[in-house]
Amino acid sequence: MTDYVLPPAIRAEAEFAPSSGIVEVFNYGRDREGIIPLWAGEGDLPTPAFIREAAARSLEAGETYYTAQRGLPELRQAIAAYTDNLYGGNWDPNRFSVTSSGMHALLMSLRLISGAGNEVIVPTPAWPNFIGAMTTLGATPIEVPMLYGQAGWNFDLDAIARAITPHTRAIVINSPSNPTGFTASYDELEGVLALARKHKLWILADEIYGRFVHDERLTVGNNRAPSVRDVMREDDDVLFIQSFSKNWAMTGWRVGWIEAPPRIAPVIENLVQYSTSGVPVFVQRGALAAITSGDAFIEEQVARSRQGRQIICDGLAMTGLVDLVPPPGAFYAYFRVDGVSDSRQLALDLIDEAAVGLAPGTAFGRGGEEFLRLCFAKSPEMVGEAADRLATAINRRGGAVRSALA
Amino acid sequence: MTDYVLPPAIRAEAEFAPSSGIVEVFNYGRDREGIIPLWAGEGDLPTPAFIREAAARSLEAGETYYTAQRGLPELRQAIAAYTDNLYGGNWDPNRFSVTSSGMHALLMSLRLISGAGNEVIVPTPAWPNFIGAMTTLGATPIEVPMLYGQAGWNFDLDAIARAITPHTRAIVINSPSNPTGFTASYDELEGVLALARKHKLWILADEIYGRFVHDERLTVGNNRAPSVRDVMREDDDVLFIQSFSKNWAMTGWRVGWIEAPPRIAPVIENLVQYSTSGVPVFVQRGALAAITSGDAFIEEQVARSRQGRQIICDGLAMTGLVDLVPPPGAFYAYFRVDGVSDSRQLALDLIDEAAVGLAPGTAFGRGGEEFLRLCFAKSPEMVGEAADRLATAINRRGGAVRSALA
Repeated sequence: MTDYVLPPAIRAEAEFAPSSGIVEVFNYGRDREGIIPLWAGEGDLPTPAFIREAAARSLEAGETYYTAQRGLPELRQAIAAYTDNLYGGNWDPNRFSVTSSGMHALLMSLRLISGAGNEVIVPTPAWPNFIGAMTTLGATPIEVPMLYGQAGWNFDLDAIARAITPHTRAIVINSPSNPTGFTASYDELEGVLALARKHKLWILADEIYGRFVHDERLTVGNNRAPSVRDVMREDDDVLFIQSFSKNWAMTGWRVGWIEAPPRIAPVIENLVQYSTSGVPVFVQRGALAAITSGDAFIEEQVARSRQGRQIICDGLAMTGLVDLVPPPGAFYAYFRVDGVSDSRQLALDLIDEAAVGLAPGTAFGRGGEEFLRLCFAKSPEMVGEAADRLATAINRRGGAVRSALA
Repeated sequence: MTDYVLPPAIRAEAEFAPSSGIVEVFNYGRDREGIIPLWAGEGDLPTPAFIREAAARSLEAGETYYTAQRGLPELRQAIAAYTDNLYGGNWDPNRFSVTSSGMHALLMSLRLISGAGNEVIVPTPAWPNFIGAMTTLGATPIEVPMLYGQAGWNFDLDAIARAITPHTRAIVINSPSNPTGFTASYDELEGVLALARKHKLWILADEIYGRFVHDERLTVGNNRAPSVRDVMREDDDVLFIQSFSKNWAMTGWRVGWIEAPPRIAPVIENLVQYSTSGVPVFVQRGALAAITSGDAFIEEQVARSRQGRQIICDGLAMTGLVDLVPPPGAFYAYFRVDGVSDSRQLALDLIDEAAVGLAPGTAFGRGGEEFLRLCFAKSPEMVGEAADRLATAINRRGGAVRSALA
């Protein structure tokens, strides 16, 4: 990796990082009149006013100076309190560091534990940025396809176990999952944790959709999905990636947090110093308002996305041509259309035929390439219109298939 | 580097990254009553109201969604126009990408061109984050001490040439320099550029203090220092690191830009995607206001820092115990006290003896370890008071030295 490039070329791991597979479709459809954009993982509501106002007050007060690398102490304290409240326990505030987005938390997690010569296991389909970020670091992502059946998606624990080598450093657990909505049961979480303990591996736990759980059997305490922290000991080697983006409709704010064993805090401080040098204070004031006063908004958001889920599942089921198990968590429908294996082409076609923007399964790695991802964290009207348009286009295609076969 | 750590340890290049050498002094003095904090590279003015208001309006308008990875097109266009206006020429807007701070621009630059097995030449004394960031990437910083004499600091071109090996990938040019205020002449810029061309190396040009030039002989067009771009061809392999922090008193905003040959734009897009996924739109609105309407503020800031420079140079010269060549650029005095070689201890002592916070030269690498860095981008009153206190403490010490010798 190191020496075959001739100066002044650029590093291979930077040059050959994969582009997100969603971009091609997005660029194809972004300027279409009347397009319903369901390709990104983002709701249609702006950040609540009380959060925006907290940031604006901070700007007005002139909080425009350098700040603590790992975040304002009061924000880190509030994150710890939120965690205690939601998950139980009394977690050391020194576990939590504010980051310049959930993505930044993920990148720092990966930099802490992986690089050239290391493998990281990623159950797929998965958010493309896991594999993208690993690639830019020279680490090797090992994709392990999940099992798919009548009950939806599940970890393939045997396959994960078989994928472990002496080079393995970590296993990713993204639950609830982007893109599938898969939500791990305690059995599954314990299964992965046991493998990690046995082989001395890190767990990278991305639980940013933890509040978005729709299946009662997988709902803990009425408001969240099962968490790795429910089955771990405090000294287990787990790095949690968290974000303000989804819970509080703050995708554009670029603020998240990483949670790590306290012994690593000084290392994280350095990685923040030498990457972004912290998060603007006024952004942190917004985040503080969100995490201390934003529970009602989360409840509204979850209820709204559950409504969208119902509409899209019903609408697509009516076609009789779609394979979609209602997702237990997150806010995506991940579905395939009978007889279609090329999701990239289908996503492009559906822009022309339905004016609905979806993300192709090819973007999410092995095991779900023929699926499409649809974000239903939108108004019921928008999701309803998208469902109608998609059903019409799919029926038309289905009809065409049926006539050809007749 | 790769395999000697036993899982689940953390990566050596992360674990052993150096902490900033300023932190110890900062922690020692931060809570002292009446301390005058001149240790950080930050002025004492908040961001101008028109910039803060532009961001607040964006927040109020609900601009809280994901945005373009490389920045708003109108901001990138404005950066290109600012560059054309200040430096002349007609630079391709595709050269410019908005980043999550100047530090983020530096880290991405380093990730583009260096990693394990690569060496990067850094003339020192230098901003500690150059070496810190390289270390976290597994690259090897090669410190080349600058020359120091009656005329101040200069590049040691012969030493730079001798430091080049087959593993060298880049040479850092930080002009005007943090911490020394060194400002490269055209001869020096051409000398480094010739070496880079000859050996096919990248130049990393950090010109974030380019507007802060105090020596008329080094002032171009009445408002800036000589730039690498004045001597380069557009196709030279130069990466520019830029920041909104210093020009517009926006240190806390975490927004900067990287300028690179246009062919690298897609790679930068990926590195942004997989690191912070962009800069908040409302932050960019502030940056846009700054770069389009902030020239008068820069002029005020430069005039104010020039006043601070005069006060501190005069005040310290009066002691007859300080070696300080008035810095041609930036907003730091970099000086040493007769008979003192341990700048770390002196910085700690001056907190006790003068209640003034300075950064020790030990933080800035080889060649200036016995110096102290003082930021004079503060009100004349504050700088004056600091000069008085420092002069008193240094005279007292000087007196002690003289009595001991008598």
